[in-house]
Amino acid sequence: MLLDETKCKNNIQRLVEKATKYDLRLRPHFKTHQSIAIGEWFRSAGIASITVSSLKMATYFAKNGWADITIAFPFYAQQIEGINQLASEIDLNVAIVNPESLKVLKEKLDYAIGVYIKIDVGTHRTGLRPEDDEVITQTIQEIFRNPMLIFKGFMGHAGHSYRARGEEEINKVHQEGLEILQQVKATYIEKLSLHDEPLEISLGDTPGFSVAENFPEVDEVRPGNLAFYDVMQTQIGSCDFDQIAVAMACPVVAKHADRHEIIIHGGAVHFSKDYILDGEGNKNFGQVVNLREDGWSDPIPDMQVVRLSQEHGVIKTSPEAFDTFQIGDVLGVLPIHSCLTADAMKSYTTFDGRVLDHLEGQVV
Amino acid sequence: MLLDETKCKNNIQRLVEKATKYDLRLRPHFKTHQSIAIGEWFRSAGIASITVSSLKMATYFAKNGWADITIAFPFYAQQIEGINQLASEIDLNVAIVNPESLKVLKEKLDYAIGVYIKIDVGTHRTGLRPEDDEVITQTIQEIFRNPMLIFKGFMGHAGHSYRARGEEEINKVHQEGLEILQQVKATYIEKLSLHDEPLEISLGDTPGFSVAENFPEVDEVRPGNLAFYDVMQTQIGSCDFDQIAVAMACPVVAKHADRHEIIIHGGAVHFSKDYILDGEGNKNFGQVVNLREDGWSDPIPDMQVVRLSQEHGVIKTSPEAFDTFQIGDVLGVLPIHSCLTADAMKSYTTFDGRVLDHLEGQVV
Repeated sequence: MLLDETKCKNNIQRLVEKATKYDLRLRPHFKTHQSIAIGEWFRSAGIASITVSSLKMATYFAKNGWADITIAFPFYAQQIEGINQLASEIDLNVAIVNPESLKVLKEKLDYAIGVYIKIDVGTHRTGLRPEDDEVITQTIQEIFRNPMLIFKGFMGHAGHSYRARGEEEINKVHQEGLEILQQVKATYIEKLSLHDEPLEISLGDTPGFSVAENFPEVDEVRPGNLAFYDVMQTQIGSCDFDQIAVAMACPVVAKHADRHEIIIHGGAVHFSKDYILDGEGNKNFGQVVNLREDGWSDPIPDMQVVRLSQEHGVIKTSPEAFDTFQIGDVLGVLPIHSCLTADAMKSYTTFDGRVLDHLEGQVV
Repeated sequence: MLLDETKCKNNIQRLVEKATKYDLRLRPHFKTHQSIAIGEWFRSAGIASITVSSLKMATYFAKNGWADITIAFPFYAQQIEGINQLASEIDLNVAIVNPESLKVLKEKLDYAIGVYIKIDVGTHRTGLRPEDDEVITQTIQEIFRNPMLIFKGFMGHAGHSYRARGEEEINKVHQEGLEILQQVKATYIEKLSLHDEPLEISLGDTPGFSVAENFPEVDEVRPGNLAFYDVMQTQIGSCDFDQIAVAMACPVVAKHADRHEIIIHGGAVHFSKDYILDGEGNKNFGQVVNLREDGWSDPIPDMQVVRLSQEHGVIKTSPEAFDTFQIGDVLGVLPIHSCLTADAMKSYTTFDGRVLDHLEGQVV
């Protein structure tokens, strides 16, 4: 997996400038890169607070100098031992999506942690529904009953922005999610007399943060994919192809002139199996580029990865594009979903030959 | 990832008995488990020859006492250094799918290796097409011109058996693939006067080997998934649910009564994103079971994993099945494609608490 350091650092810089412009605390999601080395690029850009999506990731980054971490995955009972360990060492926040999990914290938590209530802002994956007044009330009251818990506020992740196409749709999802969080915050400040509590609104998704220009009442943003971007984000409308900072280097192992297919060493164990549908409803597992010494080209027209098995990738081309590559060449593929491809590849190679770490390549 | 040692060993035993019955050399594909420990169970069952799908896997197993390995992925130029290293140590076979790759072997191969010509038996992924007489002839002649290459014969992988449903369709794919290989072998023995060469036919896929009962002229079989099986294989018709030897243990982190969905910690980075379509055309990413101390139940009706994001899995249930699990429980999920799930999880836990290795969990 090749990493274009300049593009990645530019992505980080844009991220920081936008957060500064709107006076938002930037707590970038490190689940995309999962790398200490890339984390340091964020630190150099002034970042001190981060988001991760598992206890394992939190532990990895805490061991490597990060002292303010939010685990934006619902807390569950089996994590308590690791949570206690981390909470004894760093400022830790967790996400709460039901009162049941608070019972475990009441019984077994030994150190203070911050908690955000996760609200379902329309994605319908996790989070309390804004209309579930009784459960939200009960959850907040339960948090205040436990002196080890510091109630931080409400977080949302508008994951359904991934189904949006274009800025208008992304903005609509962003706006709706934001209004839900504003409404919830106002409702429970009033209902439970929390006027003196510094309750926050924390927003999640990369498309919304990339595109939106309105962040009223937002305290914190947690975009992650933005450091790398990928083909999916270009389809959504969050970025352009030339902002994608990672590409896979894949040897050409066979060519089939009868069906204009090129076979590469690069399969499901390298890319993962995420795909997007192209304009004609065909699955697209990656976009082919020409690799250069210090970068790569725009996607080559009429050429995309259409099938993946464990180790093989199959690229379908037009008759004209078929001759672009010969057996023995190494071509580039921009991943559909860079978070999953990075997780599968477990390291990054820069153009000057350095190999950067990824959590999954480490023994932790 | 839980491994039922008894089921796995029974699968291996059935494999060995069937190969013995038909007098076939068993060269099981280790890409499914990628484990030294599980490899030893094969060795105890009398296996000495194995198949892998990458140079990396071949190196891993060669380092751990396997001395007869076929890499059933097309050889390509960038592998030559590793091939030379391995060929100096063990009996190595590679797959050839075009004359171009033979040029590299001619120039740079330092030790003798066996070569199989891979024939496309209908899958249309890789392999020479049986009708490409000129290319096959040229490839065979080129092999004989290189004294370092030992021509072993023809291999096929009827990967399109994965689109079959039921024994009849699997048998049809098996029979057609076998006839293609028999025909190719007979044609080139005649055409190039190879009557004195001990040319083999080597067959690949798990569904065909699981179901078929005719193996005339077959010398070798290379099934892999058979050691574990998975939900996909039950849909194809290769096995029953009670033969599946692996299951994922996933904590329940949330429940949504309004839409009868259960959220688990178990996502794309654990399962991979392979799916099958159920009878109603819905995506199924895994089948839910009850975990016991020493095994698991049959799949629970009206309950399947319908979505995966990076860390989350979403299980859809009927209203009745919704109460089967509570927040804080740990449930089991039978994977759709065990090879990819094992590759993502990087180790196995047995019911007596041992942790078995997987190549991807090792630093190699």
